[in-house]
Amino acid sequence: MDINEKYFSNLTLRERAIFEGAISMGALFHQFIGTPINKKSVASLELAISKSLELQPAIEKVEVAIDLKKLDEAMSDFEYVSLSGEMLNVKIHSQIGDILAIIRMEFIEELKYPLMYVEEIIESK
Amino acid sequence: MDINEKYFSNLTLRERAIFEGAISMGALFHQFIGTPINKKSVASLELAISKSLELQPAIEKVEVAIDLKKLDEAMSDFEYVSLSGEMLNVKIHSQIGDILAIIRMEFIEELKYPLMYVEEIIESK
Amino acid sequence: MDINEKYFSNLTLRERAIFEGAISMGALFHQFIGTPINKKSVASLELAISKSLELQPAIEKVEVAIDLKKLDEAMSDFEYVSLSGEMLNVKIHSQIGDILAIIRMEFIEELKYPLMYVEEIIESK
Amino acid sequence: MDINEKYFSNLTLRERAIFEGAISMGALFHQFIGTPINKKSVASLELAISKSLELQPAIEKVEVAIDLKKLDEAMSDFEYVSLSGEMLNVKIHSQIGDILAIIRMEFIEELKYPLMYVEEIIESK
Repeated sequence: MDINEKYFSNLTLRERAIFEGAISMGALFHQFIGTPINKKSVASLELAISKSLELQPAIEKVEVAIDLKKLDEAMSDFEYVSLSGEMLNVKIHSQIGDILAIIRMEFIEELKYPLMYVEEIIESK
Repeated sequence: MDINEKYFSNLTLRERAIFEGAISMGALFHQFIGTPINKKSVASLELAISKSLELQPAIEKVEVAIDLKKLDEAMSDFEYVSLSGEMLNVKIHSQIGDILAIIRMEFIEELKYPLMYVEEIIESK
Repeated sequence: MDINEKYFSNLTLRERAIFEGAISMGALFHQFIGTPINKKSVASLELAISKSLELQPAIEKVEVAIDLKKLDEAMSDFEYVSLSGEMLNVKIHSQIGDILAIIRMEFIEELKYPLMYVEEIIESK
Repeated sequence: MDINEKYFSNLTLRERAIFEGAISMGALFHQFIGTPINKKSVASLELAISKSLELQPAIEKVEVAIDLKKLDEAMSDFEYVSLSGEMLNVKIHSQIGDILAIIRMEFIEELKYPLMYVEEIIESK
């Protein structure tokens, strides 16, 4: 089966890059929110998030930065907390053909919301 | 803050409708996969999935159908199973301005994969 | 296979009731944290949480109360938020033989932590 | 606040070790089921699961083994799959005072079910 022909011929390369990057951003948030975390486990969680989401279609690179200051502010008496949207800053690089879409999530204090948006779209040639 | 102006002026209405629908489809899958389920709880879970995802930006309607045959085939001796991608058939209606994007997820046996794609894009005028 | 004989003969009825209730409380938290929610979707989510966890072994009843005041305090400009531990108050009734264990989760402000504990154990005769 | 006194004085050390281990097993399953995975990402996911759950109260060690044969059997045309209960084999070491409870999860083919049980309880003196 030619999947691109059968399921994606109604999208431009640019639309497809946006589509795949957006799926992965929604997936990332809802898969990992709630994970127990403290400073000692940040690096291993960031790595596992990147490695798992980079498996999805079109995803070239996933950069995850967990905000240590926010983590510290939320800290419980049990010396860990649940990962929340406030702590996450993510860039997902989604590539289809020569189009690279960079999807971003960051917590916007003014909105009290982890906003997902398209940061940049680059045509490689 | 004008969010549309600040964060989304680099997208067409069509691209934005695709973007928001794709986020919600990725979110739906990774939030609810793993939920304990059997025939008695199907209706309440389908409703909660719809009601929660319909809160996200641009999402007008979420239609969730859990495949009872697949549910039955996977059934354990404990009379429930974990919700899996094989069982899910979903349509998300994402509307931006006069553009409606219908995002679909269905399990494609030939690919052994719960494929997400854009089923249709309708311009309302 | 006699599952009780093979896997659970090393526990008293009381220990088994505690064990099963604790599994379901951990499951509940990590399955549903992150779900989009606002006042309009509270009832459907509470119901789906109860119905799904009540399928697990030994679980007789799951009472979920989402704190509307906490929900309101966390509210974003997009008129929904992600379900968090602060908002959850849960009682799980786990019954093995004539022992009923009531497992509780509530957010303890002083600890900044959604504490899970055994609220009461009742021997029915 | 003396948490042990206030919330856990109704349990023996043995019951508390079982309780905390069971919470973490339920948490592990429902947090990570659904994560995209293939052979290349197994090691990083196993590590992140262990590191995160080891933060929870009483948890001394979490051993996670993802079954590569099951992973391979489930493999999709997209060269990754969603982590499922069939693939997981876990031991959680929960210690309270001189009592170590080893909680186990393994998929039992005969039951079509990822069974959680108490594998062993060791009194260290």
